[in-house]
Amino acid sequence: MIDRIAILGTGLLGTSIGLALREGGFKGAIAGWNRSPEQAQLALAMGAIDSVAPDPIEAAHANEVTVLAVPIFATIDFMEKLAGVLGPDQLVTDVGSTKRVISETAARLYNTPDRAAFLPGHPMAGKERGGAALADATLFRGAMWLFTLKGTGFSPSENSQEVNGALAPAGVSETAAALMREWREWVTKMGAKTLDLDPARHDELVAWVSHLPQFTATALSALLEEEVGDAPELKDVGGRALREMTRLGASPYSMWRDIAHTNTGAVERALLALEQRLAHLRENLRTPVLRDEFDQANKFRKE
Amino acid sequence: MIDRIAILGTGLLGTSIGLALREGGFKGAIAGWNRSPEQAQLALAMGAIDSVAPDPIEAAHANEVTVLAVPIFATIDFMEKLAGVLGPDQLVTDVGSTKRVISETAARLYNTPDRAAFLPGHPMAGKERGGAALADATLFRGAMWLFTLKGTGFSPSENSQEVNGALAPAGVSETAAALMREWREWVTKMGAKTLDLDPARHDELVAWVSHLPQFTATALSALLEEEVGDAPELKDVGGRALREMTRLGASPYSMWRDIAHTNTGAVERALLALEQRLAHLRENLRTPVLRDEFDQANKFRKE
Repeated sequence: MIDRIAILGTGLLGTSIGLALREGGFKGAIAGWNRSPEQAQLALAMGAIDSVAPDPIEAAHANEVTVLAVPIFATIDFMEKLAGVLGPDQLVTDVGSTKRVISETAARLYNTPDRAAFLPGHPMAGKERGGAALADATLFRGAMWLFTLKGTGFSPSENSQEVNGALAPAGVSETAAALMREWREWVTKMGAKTLDLDPARHDELVAWVSHLPQFTATALSALLEEEVGDAPELKDVGGRALREMTRLGASPYSMWRDIAHTNTGAVERALLALEQRLAHLRENLRTPVLRDEFDQANKFRKE
Repeated sequence: MIDRIAILGTGLLGTSIGLALREGGFKGAIAGWNRSPEQAQLALAMGAIDSVAPDPIEAAHANEVTVLAVPIFATIDFMEKLAGVLGPDQLVTDVGSTKRVISETAARLYNTPDRAAFLPGHPMAGKERGGAALADATLFRGAMWLFTLKGTGFSPSENSQEVNGALAPAGVSETAAALMREWREWVTKMGAKTLDLDPARHDELVAWVSHLPQFTATALSALLEEEVGDAPELKDVGGRALREMTRLGASPYSMWRDIAHTNTGAVERALLALEQRLAHLRENLRTPVLRDEFDQANKFRKE
């Protein structure tokens, strides 16, 4: 049913979505826009989009489904600009890494009978460096793609069963509900597994399993740059383990700033817990407690 | 010249050394011993050794070069037992992850004209799980293999040039000096790059680039086991980044206990520095300082 998609933001994720849609069998039109026109041209050259849209608002207006694949604050800007422009038979979805603020914005501006539908989404996939050039049709294969529809006004008692089911939920038009169902199917065809979470629960969870690992890698990399950065040969000493533990150190501030701003409390709690855990380990390097820490860590990695 | 090697400890590293020696063209005999006979039989079946030695001391006595590939305290035990058994034309080397205590033991018991030679070594390679079954002929390819001969009594002013050069250094027999040179050549043939360091400098350096990443992964994994361990589907949410940052969480206590005991001070300093860095980042999630941390981390990962 969906045959016209606009992707606003053809960086790593937006361009990968275009490629993955094609790989998954999508035959419709895909228009792409990017703040930097070179990135949009690159996405076009890679076959992720069929046309470069000169204006993002017009592109969204002309398509059934709009995918916002830009940082979080830019996503919210677009949500505000598009709310008055789109009609009730159109769907907007996003890929932002925190969902509370975006879901609140959706509840405020979308998902009523006279407005467009909004489905907050978050594919748990990425690379430590951004840009269309690194885009990959298989980026989402095996990854989780989270949705946080609850509390957006989409339905009085919405849950994933209802959304995936045949009934058109309350709050949006039947057309928009169908687009929403179909977008979930395309996500599955891109190779991802979907999971529905409450937005607050989502942000708490990703603080632990995504944001904490990132900020840990950033702190570790920054510290090591200070300690051994002037002797490049010493970086080689660390080998694979060091490379892995600092790979995310290459992640750009531009993306993580918005995450730090929109999930501050949960990230603070996670960081403080890790500081305390490291101190506990440090104070027990020569006691049997060290064994307990290794046992507990081993358990996390057990199949 | 070396044509008889004994490997004491046919776990991941010992078995990989046997395989890598064969891959590098070693045609002589390799005897292997392991505390658990099954591991030695497995190394034999994999072609890493030609024979299983029933007794480790006798095996060392009967060979020109003995490689100690056991945890640090077991290495020191063997050094003490072998010192009185071996003669001046024999070489012992090891793969222990800390080198100060081992180098001090070497200075006390080896490297005099009437005793065997000892070359403290440390290949920067491994896996998060041990055992012969995971051994790999290519494990050392591209890895650094560190030596810490200084202060072991091997030579009054030893350094790598001297050791690699034609002159037989003071302190050991010409035969032992030649074995030492040749072992370094085999290390290169196994695919590793060698680097000579002072033992104290070695331990300080690996505290930063190897032990800190390990203990960080252990603390992070243990913490996450507590937070999300009861919901296995949530581990999947983290994706590749989480898997990488916690892979070392599977590392065994049995190996890391000895490292924690023999490099306590340097590891304590590194852990405390990371705790402070994480706190600094946590306190600046919404300030421009966060950009500085990302910039500094990005620098560490720049080519």
